[in-house]
Amino acid sequence: MSSSFAVKRPNLGSSQPVEKVDWKKRKAEIKEAKKQRKEAKLINRLEKQKQQEAAEKAETELSQSKKGRAYTVSLALPGSILDNAQSPELRTYLAGQIARACVVFSVDEIVVFDERGEDVKSVEGEFSGVGKRGHGCIQLARILQYLECPQYLRKAFFPKHQDLQYAGLLNPLDSPHHMRIDEESDYREGVVVDRPTKHNKGSFVDCGMRKEVQIDKQLQPGLRVTVRLIWVHLSVKLSAEGKAYKGVVVAPHVPRTEGGYYWGYSVRLASCLSAVFTESPFKGGYDLTIGTSERGSNADQASLTPFKHLLVVFGGLQGLEASLDADQKLDVTDPSVLFDLYLNTCPGQGSRTIRTEEAILISMAALRPKITSSSASLES
Amino acid sequence: MSSSFAVKRPNLGSSQPVEKVDWKKRKAEIKEAKKQRKEAKLINRLEKQKQQEAAEKAETELSQSKKGRAYTVSLALPGSILDNAQSPELRTYLAGQIARACVVFSVDEIVVFDERGEDVKSVEGEFSGVGKRGHGCIQLARILQYLECPQYLRKAFFPKHQDLQYAGLLNPLDSPHHMRIDEESDYREGVVVDRPTKHNKGSFVDCGMRKEVQIDKQLQPGLRVTVRLIWVHLSVKLSAEGKAYKGVVVAPHVPRTEGGYYWGYSVRLASCLSAVFTESPFKGGYDLTIGTSERGSNADQASLTPFKHLLVVFGGLQGLEASLDADQKLDVTDPSVLFDLYLNTCPGQGSRTIRTEEAILISMAALRPKITSSSASLES
Ligand SMILES: C[S@@+](CC[C@H](N)C(=O)[O-])C[C@H]1O[C@@H](n2cnc3c(N)ncnc32)[C@H](O)[C@@H]1O
Ligand SMILES: C[S@@+](CC[C@H](N)C(=O)[O-])C[C@H]1O[C@@H](n2cnc3c(N)ncnc32)[C@H](O)[C@@H]1O
Repeated sequence: MSSSFAVKRPNLGSSQPVEKVDWKKRKAEIKEAKKQRKEAKLINRLEKQKQQEAAEKAETELSQSKKGRAYTVSLALPGSILDNAQSPELRTYLAGQIARACVVFSVDEIVVFDERGEDVKSVEGEFSGVGKRGHGCIQLARILQYLECPQYLRKAFFPKHQDLQYAGLLNPLDSPHHMRIDEESDYREGVVVDRPTKHNKGSFVDCGMRKEVQIDKQLQPGLRVTVRLIWVHLSVKLSAEGKAYKGVVVAPHVPRTEGGYYWGYSVRLASCLSAVFTESPFKGGYDLTIGTSERGSNADQASLTPFKHLLVVFGGLQGLEASLDADQKLDVTDPSVLFDLYLNTCPGQGSRTIRTEEAILISMAALRPKITSSSASLES
Repeated sequence: MSSSFAVKRPNLGSSQPVEKVDWKKRKAEIKEAKKQRKEAKLINRLEKQKQQEAAEKAETELSQSKKGRAYTVSLALPGSILDNAQSPELRTYLAGQIARACVVFSVDEIVVFDERGEDVKSVEGEFSGVGKRGHGCIQLARILQYLECPQYLRKAFFPKHQDLQYAGLLNPLDSPHHMRIDEESDYREGVVVDRPTKHNKGSFVDCGMRKEVQIDKQLQPGLRVTVRLIWVHLSVKLSAEGKAYKGVVVAPHVPRTEGGYYWGYSVRLASCLSAVFTESPFKGGYDLTIGTSERGSNADQASLTPFKHLLVVFGGLQGLEASLDADQKLDVTDPSVLFDLYLNTCPGQGSRTIRTEEAILISMAALRPKITSSSASLES
């Protein structure tokens, strides 16, 4: 599968000791912090109070979300839905609607599948321009990735491209990992910058802050990384007086699994419906799968068994039946046998048909309380 | 309040004997039916079987929905949301999203309120063009009305208008009252045509069928009417051989209250938030009101008391607090005191902010099962 459109990340094996502490560096940090704390006494009362308030706020926010989230939610849909849009502008807008719906419901992975079965052509290679029919998969994937990327990193990862021609019109995702410049946070997304560093001193990363972040590792410039920031306690402002902030590179899932933050989604292309299941990035695949259809069973009566990796699948204009028909690897004709649950999430719908972009918001809203109680039962 | 944009309907008082039977006419109908039934014998077996199947289908559909729905659901939102759209095209598209969301959840009334408090100017008078800021209320109302109107009636009720410039791009509502030409149904929307009829013979109505419908009343041409069709049993096709179909004019709520059909929404303009409540078209007003906000209480734990007329209110870019601030008639500052329930319908939202058009789908999806069980408890 082509990754031509994909953002490059460092290979952080799960066994990698990302949290190993460099004691020498740590000592130096502590010493530096002490020095800074002395200097702090010079700062007037008012300023101090302001700082304290900010720190307290950050602290509460941190403790509230301290508990990590172990499970993931993936959502799959056919890229062909873009082909029904009435104009290039609306085609782009539709992609934006999908992205926003996924962020609102904290979706961790979006899988764009080809429901026409012409796999290779439509997920590899370049899309020939906004507005043309076809090639919906790669354009949808590209816009989803573009929107997921924090604004301050877009220049680094998304050169001008036809697919993104109208992306400026799109509503921002307002995801928690899209930080404003002065926002204090435990984690940040960044790009490794091309700046010579002394051996063993670690690379510098642009995390969209006023200063760069010096990380623990020497990494190739241009990589996208997730950084855990090392804040010198209660002296956030003071640490800004140094040359750079300090941080360690962590796996992209760490803000979620350890911090409990929603941290955007990854995007995956699948050449057909069956590849959505078989090419899961999770060891052991998805352990709970839900198909959605007006012909499904009443979602009000359904409850979810505890899961680690949930997958919710949506169809296009012709429903999942059409996606199934086009898939040469799948022998069944009834989509319900493919899933653990096949649900009608809007019983008694007033319109004869619900569009995919609407069905995502409606279905995820219907599933949200069920996901919450299923994951609660897993923890207890 | 200006009704310049409104579709004109006949004044059907609720005490009006819309179901009074004209026996003379009825006899003639029965006689005619008999004659037609004789003719039917000439039609070959296959054709007959086809008819029977169609009739059976109609019958089941009828019996399934036989039970009327007594309650109504109203939804209110500020017209100002249109002003945040990035282009005239997207401004129109947003109005279309609202219309579709309301139809999917069988909303009976949409109230567009002015949250800027400059009442008179913005709900009366003409909108000066798509794309200009301001005047969102009247444009939103106009597009909502346009979309609600069955396609075959649009030419009669919606002359070319700047507000509707991009309405051709919009996704159809696919509402059950938007009938296709040969669709058999108990009710149809129509327009009284300008054709001379003999005194006491009743007017002719264009209901988007192959022939006009002769109704029981003499009405002014150009009025929009809801017609209950009189099908000569099992000879639907045969009755088409006559000069016109027969029907009686009923109040617009009859398809819902007697037939159990979702029959589109009415549109009302309100000059401020308080007018949403005080100008309710229902005797006694709304008996259950829900405000929506991320600062509301967790909707998962809420249940709805039985109601006849539910009102669900949404805020704009700044939330309902802003709508309240602008309303000189309301003295409170905390919107929660205005409503029976003030609900967060998406606890744990992944995005920092949910847009009004998204919040409608999400909130109505969250409320749908609660509405269903509340109305079930009312019936039992
Ligand atoms: C335009 S609809 C597909 C309609 C198609 N004619 C069919 O019969 O399936 C697109 C997608 O929205 C979702 N969808 C639509 N209505 C739904 C409902 N009531 N419940 C759950 N999902 C629904 C499904 O994923 C469906 O494949
Ligand atoms: C853009 S939001 C308003 C945001 C505004 N900053 C606020 O704090 O209220 C627009 C509307 O969407 C609805 N909404 C947004 N999030 C919601 C939630 N979690 N639960 C219920 N309604 C919500 C409310 O009606 C809100 O007024």
